[in-house]
Amino acid sequence: MEKPSLFFGTGNAKKLKEIREILGDRFTIKSFTDLPSPLEVEETESTLEGNAALKAQAFFDCVGIPCISDDTGLEVEALDGAPGVFSARYAGPEGDAQANMAKLLHEMAGLSIRKAKFRTVIAYYDGKKMSFFEGELKGSIGHEPRGTNGFGYDPVFLPEGENRTLAEFTAEEKNAISHRGRALNQFVGFLS
Amino acid sequence: MEKPSLFFGTGNAKKLKEIREILGDRFTIKSFTDLPSPLEVEETESTLEGNAALKAQAFFDCVGIPCISDDTGLEVEALDGAPGVFSARYAGPEGDAQANMAKLLHEMAGLSIRKAKFRTVIAYYDGKKMSFFEGELKGSIGHEPRGTNGFGYDPVFLPEGENRTLAEFTAEEKNAISHRGRALNQFVGFLS
Repeated sequence: MEKPSLFFGTGNAKKLKEIREILGDRFTIKSFTDLPSPLEVEETESTLEGNAALKAQAFFDCVGIPCISDDTGLEVEALDGAPGVFSARYAGPEGDAQANMAKLLHEMAGLSIRKAKFRTVIAYYDGKKMSFFEGELKGSIGHEPRGTNGFGYDPVFLPEGENRTLAEFTAEEKNAISHRGRALNQFVGFLS
Repeated sequence: MEKPSLFFGTGNAKKLKEIREILGDRFTIKSFTDLPSPLEVEETESTLEGNAALKAQAFFDCVGIPCISDDTGLEVEALDGAPGVFSARYAGPEGDAQANMAKLLHEMAGLSIRKAKFRTVIAYYDGKKMSFFEGELKGSIGHEPRGTNGFGYDPVFLPEGENRTLAEFTAEEKNAISHRGRALNQFVGFLS
């Protein structure tokens, strides 16, 4: 018979070790102290799919309930798909959105072909099977950041046929058309 | 009908907000990004019971499976029960075990009454009810740290009738008699 899961809320790895020694025969002791990094799993894969799966698996291992994880990249045509899987860390490991956008605008200075797309991959792990769901949003890169909603590259991304950046959309408007919204709708369709 | 829980593995609070906006009608989206602190809930209560309950509730809210949490204090008779609920932070907020032991030995320099006890309170929260389980280990405080097993104050604590410190016990020996082991046995008894 499968052991019931019990979550042990601690940041103390040595307490966790003791609790496992004492209760390990009766329970599967879950703890997020097991995660490689406290808040984010390091994205060591070379694809969005790989990173999303890595995270969904790691978080499932840690909490024991069905998990989704998201990896999102901005793919710029004139930059051969960069920053892509490195979007969040384009200007450095600290993942500063302002610095990332500044670097992108700098790399694209003088370029007239500004086509780009956001791509989100959602990995869903239910403890047995890993499933993937994808969503895209096509558009172009503006010449300066505009708007304060959303996050990441939203202020420099203009969805196709729009003269507002994604950061000038309301949350509701963004979610209705966005890469992440589309990937999640695929996921919901899969479950029903 | 209760919504199914789904864990979203991310350290990005803004992604989490979007996912909740999109999936919130269908799922209770759990995430440990909701915790007040990434790895440990701040212990703001004045009792072991209070802190253990605080943590069990916060971690349950975040993962949605039954949770236990532990708060442990070392109570020294000649110091009126200090360090007690402040044991882990006796010498400062960084919780350095060497510094804590050094401070304790300094405070007790010249004292001949060295009686002390470890007390662990386990809080168990199943989503409806909070239950508490307690374990004690009586002993005394030595004059210098000895041993490398265990953690915290183990190297300066001699269980009653022993001339070894708790850090000179094997893990198995410690767990069989310890405050934490006893509290967990109470918990197991409660469940069966």
